[in-house]
Amino acid sequence: MARIVMKFGGAVLASTEQIQEMAKKAIAEKDRGLDVVVVVAGMGQSANEMKRMVQHLTDEVSKRELAVLMSTCSQQSSALLAIALQEAGYRAVALTGWQAGIHTDSMYSHARIDYLDASRIEEHFTQGDIVVVAGEQGIDDMDNVTTLGKGGAETAAVALAVALDAERVDIYTNVDGVYTADPRYVTKAQQLQEISYDEMLELANLGSHIIHPRAVELAKKFQMPVIIRASRGESVGTLLKEEVEMEKNLVVRGVAFESDIIRLTVGYDAYSDASLADIFTVLAENRINVDIIVQAIIDGLKPTVSFSILKEEFAEALRVLEDSKLSLGFSFADFEIGLAKVSIIGSGMASNPGVAARMFDRLRRENIPVKMVSTSEIKVSVVVPQDDMIQAANALHNEFNLEQAIHI
Amino acid sequence: MARIVMKFGGAVLASTEQIQEMAKKAIAEKDRGLDVVVVVAGMGQSANEMKRMVQHLTDEVSKRELAVLMSTCSQQSSALLAIALQEAGYRAVALTGWQAGIHTDSMYSHARIDYLDASRIEEHFTQGDIVVVAGEQGIDDMDNVTTLGKGGAETAAVALAVALDAERVDIYTNVDGVYTADPRYVTKAQQLQEISYDEMLELANLGSHIIHPRAVELAKKFQMPVIIRASRGESVGTLLKEEVEMEKNLVVRGVAFESDIIRLTVGYDAYSDASLADIFTVLAENRINVDIIVQAIIDGLKPTVSFSILKEEFAEALRVLEDSKLSLGFSFADFEIGLAKVSIIGSGMASNPGVAARMFDRLRRENIPVKMVSTSEIKVSVVVPQDDMIQAANALHNEFNLEQAIHI
Repeated sequence: MARIVMKFGGAVLASTEQIQEMAKKAIAEKDRGLDVVVVVAGMGQSANEMKRMVQHLTDEVSKRELAVLMSTCSQQSSALLAIALQEAGYRAVALTGWQAGIHTDSMYSHARIDYLDASRIEEHFTQGDIVVVAGEQGIDDMDNVTTLGKGGAETAAVALAVALDAERVDIYTNVDGVYTADPRYVTKAQQLQEISYDEMLELANLGSHIIHPRAVELAKKFQMPVIIRASRGESVGTLLKEEVEMEKNLVVRGVAFESDIIRLTVGYDAYSDASLADIFTVLAENRINVDIIVQAIIDGLKPTVSFSILKEEFAEALRVLEDSKLSLGFSFADFEIGLAKVSIIGSGMASNPGVAARMFDRLRRENIPVKMVSTSEIKVSVVVPQDDMIQAANALHNEFNLEQAIHI
Repeated sequence: MARIVMKFGGAVLASTEQIQEMAKKAIAEKDRGLDVVVVVAGMGQSANEMKRMVQHLTDEVSKRELAVLMSTCSQQSSALLAIALQEAGYRAVALTGWQAGIHTDSMYSHARIDYLDASRIEEHFTQGDIVVVAGEQGIDDMDNVTTLGKGGAETAAVALAVALDAERVDIYTNVDGVYTADPRYVTKAQQLQEISYDEMLELANLGSHIIHPRAVELAKKFQMPVIIRASRGESVGTLLKEEVEMEKNLVVRGVAFESDIIRLTVGYDAYSDASLADIFTVLAENRINVDIIVQAIIDGLKPTVSFSILKEEFAEALRVLEDSKLSLGFSFADFEIGLAKVSIIGSGMASNPGVAARMFDRLRRENIPVKMVSTSEIKVSVVVPQDDMIQAANALHNEFNLEQAIHI
């Protein structure tokens, strides 16, 4: 029997009414004759209440206990959704992460999936059950509860789809799908009906918070089709898949932007002290996401390295650098706040070398200073003052004619 | 190293401030050099919120999914208490029921403990951890999450104490200890410093909701000392243990009472139809607690059996009887609401046959009608109209001179 994995985020499960609505979505797939797994995130208000209580108790919480605590949120929504499905007359079963066979490493609140044992879910399929899995959580080798961190439920959904050989993953959010830019800020933004994994990866990485890059990476690795669609109405959504032939000729496919960026700069007394690898190894070990990296080694000047991080990871990054100051051998650390990142994305970009130049030119004409630059095969990102972010995004959306994006 | 198991109920863990207070109690024991296990119930408000949401979704919830849902409550308090302990500078670890090795049957929301594997707790002891266990929950043979139902956390606490060969169990509540009667209603009630398991069993069964009879039974079976004490102040509490020699001469040790009793009566057309065993087997299979049973088989009259149950189990009991009407063979079922039970308890009662007579005489003088009677070696219970309950309790407390209870 064909299978589908559906993922419901916290925003579409915020009330019992919403839970009932989402139950209908799962039932529609079951009625189509599919085996259905639903992966749920925790209800937002529940998670916030838990975090509030933790803040009352401590400034520096143990990640193991935080995982024990926060994993209850998706466990609660899994039980409530299963109850709603049963009330509608369907067989349903709520499984925790470990019951669903999600085995992870021991990075408690940022765990990665090691392997998946889907045998229990297979068993429930033979009984006709709709299987509701508490996403965002798993279990480590020592039988400790772990949580998967950001994008965990989506990543678990893709992983389960791969393990179960599902047709595809449907991710239900509160937006219709993927746009050429965030329509809240760029009024002429157009919805895309298809997008490639790589393009989505850049969009997701660049602050279009529709789907987490971890999930996209996994989907790309296993060529698992993913549809991002709205929980309300009958939106067709945006399909993520490998090739988007018909739009190859469009150089730039979307504009992404993200505020609350901080630039951290670390300086060394001498070139011999500077070990980039060491710095980024220490940060990676602490699961701090570093984005744009700019290294400046200029004769006569002390060597520096700058990198951008999210505001929410700033305190942790500073702590990690401080703790490792001696072994890393740097002489000073400096930072600039109030920045934002604006990026253009498109898989056809690599063969169009003029794209970056056109971007910089437009920003110059808009009088927007560029603080950092980063390029890849399919995107160009710039760091600009946060106050200029929306203007930059709209200008670039216009510059690359995204108002006229072709709809398949 | 000597060990202690502490149990904190939901009422003493209702806020982060209370969690911090209770952490201090655990730390005091750890500082005395003991290995400490703390068994916690769920925070009351969290459980109520979950129940409210279930009621929005369904009238008849699947017990399996309810267990998945409700087990999150004690899991949350276990994590929060462990976090508070760590913040105070102590090693602590939060364990779910299954991580603590609590194996149960599959009666999801009313599961019984089958066996306990304390090896993981032992391991944490060797690391110096204070172990915080989410009470009220376990796991069945099929790796399903179960909850232990009423008194579950206390029962788990006693079971863990037995498995770990602990010195004793300290149960922290919001009352000072066990009294000769509920001091809220019987102003002359006196606190007892010691009480035997059997007496406590009767008191607990009879509506003095300080500790659940399941926990007392288990403590009695394994002769595990239990202290019931207040979470606030330095109350010495009441010690439950096997023998209370010095007070043996006191015939009646306490008066217990409980409102919201319903009398159910089931009638048969003929004597041959009546199978008491069948009725109570069906009720027991559905974990409905039947208390006083009165069978009336009088020549020329149709046979009936009456039994008392708690109001909250009434709907379920009716449903069970209705579902099994054919197989049970009864012809009608009837009920009387608005009743209460009042009991006198004392281990010296068996050798004093006049005690029951003195009780009935006093109630008659108080003009309180007696609807049902039940006696055991150490107690006499009567069912009376709920409106007369407090008067009956005070009259009996006075009748047996409990104002002058001897304090060891």
